This record gives sequence, structure tokens and C-alpha cells, in this order.
Amino acid sequence: MALIVHKYGGTSMGSAERIRNVSERVAKWHAAGHQMVVVPSAMAGETNRLIALAKEIEPDPDSRELDMISATGEQVSVGLLALALKARDVPAVSYAGWQVPVRTDSSFGKARILSIDAERVHADLAAGRVVIVTGFQGVDPDGHVTTLGRGGSDTSAVAVAAALKADECLIYTDVDGVYTTDPRIVPEARRMEKITFEEMLEMASLGSKVLQIRSVEFAGKYKVKTRVLSSLTPPDIDLALEAASGTLITFEEDETMEKAVISGIAFNRDEAKITLMRVPDRPGVAFQILGPVADANIDVDMIIQNQSVDGMTDFSFTVHRNEYQKALGVLEAQVRSSIGGGEIVGDPKICKVSAVGIGMRSHVGIASLMFRTLSEEGINIQMISTSEIKISVVIEDKYMELAVRALHKAFGLEHRSGATESVAGV
Amino acid sequence: MALIVHKYGGTSMGSAERIRNVSERVAKWHAAGHQMVVVPSAMAGETNRLIALAKEIEPDPDSRELDMISATGEQVSVGLLALALKARDVPAVSYAGWQVPVRTDSSFGKARILSIDAERVHADLAAGRVVIVTGFQGVDPDGHVTTLGRGGSDTSAVAVAAALKADECLIYTDVDGVYTTDPRIVPEARRMEKITFEEMLEMASLGSKVLQIRSVEFAGKYKVKTRVLSSLTPPDIDLALEAASGTLITFEEDETMEKAVISGIAFNRDEAKITLMRVPDRPGVAFQILGPVADANIDVDMIIQNQSVDGMTDFSFTVHRNEYQKALGVLEAQVRSSIGGGEIVGDPKICKVSAVGIGMRSHVGIASLMFRTLSEEGINIQMISTSEIKISVVIEDKYMELAVRALHKAFGLEHRSGATESVAGV
Repeated sequence: MALIVHKYGGTSMGSAERIRNVSERVAKWHAAGHQMVVVPSAMAGETNRLIALAKEIEPDPDSRELDMISATGEQVSVGLLALALKARDVPAVSYAGWQVPVRTDSSFGKARILSIDAERVHADLAAGRVVIVTGFQGVDPDGHVTTLGRGGSDTSAVAVAAALKADECLIYTDVDGVYTTDPRIVPEARRMEKITFEEMLEMASLGSKVLQIRSVEFAGKYKVKTRVLSSLTPPDIDLALEAASGTLITFEEDETMEKAVISGIAFNRDEAKITLMRVPDRPGVAFQILGPVADANIDVDMIIQNQSVDGMTDFSFTVHRNEYQKALGVLEAQVRSSIGGGEIVGDPKICKVSAVGIGMRSHVGIASLMFRTLSEEGINIQMISTSEIKISVVIEDKYMELAVRALHKAFGLEHRSGATESVAGV
Repeated sequence: MALIVHKYGGTSMGSAERIRNVSERVAKWHAAGHQMVVVPSAMAGETNRLIALAKEIEPDPDSRELDMISATGEQVSVGLLALALKARDVPAVSYAGWQVPVRTDSSFGKARILSIDAERVHADLAAGRVVIVTGFQGVDPDGHVTTLGRGGSDTSAVAVAAALKADECLIYTDVDGVYTTDPRIVPEARRMEKITFEEMLEMASLGSKVLQIRSVEFAGKYKVKTRVLSSLTPPDIDLALEAASGTLITFEEDETMEKAVISGIAFNRDEAKITLMRVPDRPGVAFQILGPVADANIDVDMIIQNQSVDGMTDFSFTVHRNEYQKALGVLEAQVRSSIGGGEIVGDPKICKVSAVGIGMRSHVGIASLMFRTLSEEGINIQMISTSEIKISVVIEDKYMELAVRALHKAFGLEHRSGATESVAGV
């Protein structure tokens, strides 16, 4: 008997029929003797409907009140799922975030979980009940309702699993696991059976939108075994088969995993590049440029400063494409004159492609294989950044698919029969 | 400066435009210097939508989970109204029942309010904020969400007003006050400027569906000045005019009110009559008959036992028409043989008509005028019951309109210029 947390997204909860399917799946796990906690999202479309209602009244709604409104979607979901389980004679009880309680800070709309009381849930589990907890929300120290931001239900599920010391957290999604890259771009992409949370973190942050990045951080921090698997299998599929499906995010590098060098190729098109030409190469200039950008609440991702020539340098960085115009405005208004720089050049037509792998730590030659591969395809690299377990390059966005396919092949990702197999020799 | 509670129904909250109207009205009161608390219902249709969703999953849904689901309608409403007020630069904050908290017992679906903490709301009011509290709901001693049952928002508003020691509770509805009887039946019916809570209690319980009866009980018990007034006046109507409109339910009989004898004619068609013919007239027979009926959770209203003839009597009572068949079944199965009675005769085609008035206490001849009036119209009285401030008769339901019109005229209700004027001479 294990303590298992299931998380279901809005599509899985999208109708009475689908909620019945979820209840059938959960009932199967419960009948097998597991203690079950379920974290469902709001019914598909519901959160958007609620936010649209709020914006109809106030286009820029107060975030405290918006959380009060949008949190109701999950409250409806947990109640409906409890009813569906009871209809199968499975004892069940639903809780909103404040009832557990899931304690968060007061950052409405993007709150962070501070702690989760496990006592009440453990008591229900001990009594044989399935416990259904709202995703996406919590309560702040003053008793206000908070939400964790879009996709927060993944984080709720992992956080609940951590608080309860669950044996495993199963995230049911509309894909059947984490792939070496997007199969829509590379048909040969393979599902990984295992991935470390660090690799998953890089994959998630780089655009593999399987899991919300904060849920992966939680999984790593609290060592929660988390599995991403398909919600599209029949609910009565054999439990052992289901339990071994998908991709397991592990918090330990086991022996087999160390042999992998590159686990996957991630990419995104969400960024834009900005370059300040010929700025003086003196101490403090980076802060002079990026300080006003940060003050305007614009997140900066990659930053490159070229080699100085005649005491002048080119300074480049990337921002989210949604904030590109805003960032250009800030630079023109507050930065250009103060640093005495030259032209400001922007380019939204870029993409970022990354090779991710925990094995990179102990292998050399990864970067050179990556650069050689791109060069052979005639793709110019505009920016490079590296971390312990990834190498990212910025290239012109029209080359994205080509680059992903070439790198996937170069690192032999389509050939391995499992993520845990060696790619020695790369 | 006064502390004022406003209550708005689902129709008033039915769209963004209407919510803006409510916020305009509330803002007007706030601008006049009043401390404002607002209790809105769910948007029209929302509670029904949520209950339908639940029933789609489970036709007989668990009441604890149904409350969890249906309580979300009001939570959305309070958030939206807070946004609408903030859009007018009126500081506002919304609270769900559990946040105040509004403490109730654990009778899910029909919970009773036990207490309301005023501290948090008073602090917000002192800071100049309009406080918006969900109607219809609370939280039980174990932290479960409860609802008060349909129409419970009226009760919430009056209970909040009582807890805050508000100066007045204004219930905005789609009628402009309480009438001497239903104007659809008697066009001459007049709006009363004042009515005592005891009279209102009789009027409400007898089918004048302006206010939920429990809200009137609360108003009486905690001496809350409650006003029923129209939500259809323009929101920017002169405040003094609005504040004096509608019908005030007072908890004191002031001098002018004592002069009124009959305040109004109430009626309902919701009951059915059951008679057990020729039952033995011995001690305990009433309990033998009504015990099993009560055990089946069927409420009995009027009870009549005729004069005994030869040690046998006819025993009649009324129940809600929805429970008529169920009551007949109970009597056939559990009562008839045990008491050795004769035929059981049922009649669902009845109605109850009542004359209500606090002045009845000190006036005689009311009953005889009522009976004479009905007799002159050729209407046979089947049952009679009386209380200190009302006389009710059961008659054949086809005579209902005729009886109401005749009594309204006989008691001179259409002639008085105000409810407080004397009807001496009746």
C-alpha cells in the first residue's frame, strides 16, 4: 500500500463524462489498496470564463479580487469529483486550499506555497477516504484566497505530495511522457522513461510545456518522485501497466542515468534579442543598462557582452517577446543618453535551442559537437550560454526546426532504446 | 453617519452592467458618509447551473459536496462587485462566509447561522472600505462550507446587520415593498410603509414571497431594522428619497402602529388537506396519527379534531402539497390499521387565506367579520386556525382570489393612505 497523489488537468475534468472517467481511474487505485489524494484543475475553459467576467467589469482587475473569483473554478471541480467517487461508493471528501490549509505568501495571482498542513488529510486517508484538494490555490497569512498562477495545479499536486510524504505524484496530461524533443518537429523523438529533476527543470523552462516549472522545482527541493503520464488511456487499464508508464522524474541520479550525456533537445520561440551597439566598456555599465529594465519588471534571460574594441563594446540580452517593445521603450527613454551609447538594435525573430543532459557534467566535447552540427547546417549562432547541464544557443528563428532535428540526430537521441542507455562515444 | 447593510438578489447581480449599477448605488451611499456592508447573491442562474452540474454527475448529490460546489456562485459575485467598486475608486474588499467567518451548524444545504465575527468587518469599515460578504453561506465548526438554502442571502444580510449592530438593513428586490396583499389579485392593494416583524413573519410564511422567512425571524430576534425596497430605481436616485422608500420592518410597535388592526391578507396554494374519518376519540390518538408522519420528515401545518360523536371523531391536517402523496402513503401503511379508523380522505385542491395584523391583539370582532365576509360570498370554510396576530382559513382553492379580494375590501385595506392609519370601527 502506498500513498499516491494524482493530478488531472482541465481537459480531464472538462465534462461530467470525463469527470466520471477520472473517478473510475482513481477508484481503481483506491481499490488496489492505495491511499489516494487527487488534485484536479478547474474544468477546461472555466478559469478563462471567470477572468473574462472580471475583465468585463474592470479591464485591469485588482489581483486580490481576481484570485477570489478565479479560485472558485477548482472548488467546483473538487466537489464534482467527490460526487463522482461517492456515486461509485468510494468514500471521498473535497477541500479548498484554505481548508487543508495550503499556506502561501500574499503575492496574489502568483503566490508561492509556504507550507501545507498534512494532519487533516492524513486523518481522512486513515479513515479510508479519497481526499480531493483544489489545485492552483491557497490562503495567505491574513486569510485571503491566493492563486499560484496559470498551471499552478501541477505545483499544488507536487507540494501536496511533498507535505504528505507521498510515495509518488502522478501528473496525468494529454501527452504520454517527456520526449527527447517535440515529436511534432522530430518524428523520431523518443519518450524518456526517466529524467532527473534538474534536466526536467531545463526542459520545462526551455519550452517543453509538459509540466509547470515551479512544480519541477518543488519535486527537486522536496525529493518527490513525480511521474508524467497519459490521461488518455482507458481508465480501467491494468494498474501495473499504468503505474510504469510515462516518464518518471527522479531526484537521484542512479547508476544507469549517469551514462546518459544528453537527454533531450529543448527550444522556444518566446524570446527577442536586444543589442546596444558601442557602449563604453567600463565598470557599472551592465547595471546601468539592466537596472531600468529590471525596475520595469522585465525578466532578462541571456546576457552577452562582446570583447571590447577601443574601449567600446556591444551589449546584448534577450527578453520575453511579449516584453520586447516595453524593453526597447525603457532603453530609449532611460538608458541610451545616460550611457552615451550608439544605436539600439532589436530582433524578435530569434529562437533558443538547447541541449540538456545531466551527463554533460562529466563529459567533454558536447559544446563542440553542438557547434559543429549547427555549422554544418549553415546556421549562424548569435548568442551562447551554458550551465552545468545545458548549452543554449540563440539562432534565427526560421532555422529552429532544422537545428532541433540536426541536434537530435547528432546526439543519437532517436537510437537509444531508453533514456538510461549509454551514449558513450559522443 | 450610519452603518448600513445592503442586500442585492441574483437579478441585480445578473450581468456586468447590472453589477456596475449596484456599485453605483453603493458608492452613492458610501459617498454620503455611511459605513457600507453589501451582501450580494450569486448571479442569476448561476446556482441553478452549479446544481445541475452536480446532478449530472450524481442525481442525488451528497449535501456536503453540493454546498462546496454551489457556494462558489456567491464567491464570484462578491469579487466582481469589489472590482466594480474599485473601478469607481471606492475602496472595497470581498469576503466568503468562512473568511468573516459566518459560523453555522453542520446542516448542509439548510444550515443555521450560529454566530458572525464582527471584528474583521469593523476593522475594514473603520479603514473606509466597503465590505462585501457572500450571502447564502457559512462555515461549520469543522471548517466545512455550508449553505443556508435557497433565498438564504436575505438571512445572511440580516444576520450580518445584527452582528455588526447596523443601523439598517436594506433588502433590494424586484418589488417596491410589502403590500396589503398581492396586487396581481387585488389591484387596490397598497404598499405598507411599515410592518412589524411579527406581521411580516405571518405574511412571509403565508406566501408573500418578498423575504425569506428566516431572515424575518432574525430581524425580530436581533431587532434589526430591515427595509424592503426596489432595486429597479435608477442607482443615482436621491439618497433621502431612496432611504425612505419601500417597507420598513420594525421591531417595535410604535404608537401609530397600534391603531392598525389588520395589516394584510396573505394566502397560499401550497397545501393539501388529509382527513381520517371516524377515528376513536381517545388519549394518544393524535400522536398515533402524526408520529409516523413526523418520522417521515413531513411538516404538518394546521390540525383540526372535530367534536366527538359516539366516541369517534374526524381528524384533519394539512401538509405541503409536495408531500401529500407521501403522507397518504404513510397513513395507509402505518396508521390506519393500528388505530382502527375508517376511510382516509385527501384533498389537494385547497388554499389557505389569512388576515394578519398586530392590532388583532386588542381588537375583537375580527374573526366574525372574516367569517361573515366569506359567508356572504358563498365560500365554505373547511378549517380554521388562529394565532395572536392572524386568522387563517382553509377553503376550496377555486375561491382563493374571490376570498382575498373580499377580505381586502372588508378590512378597508385599500382605503387607508398608510399602514399606520387607524381602521377604528372595524
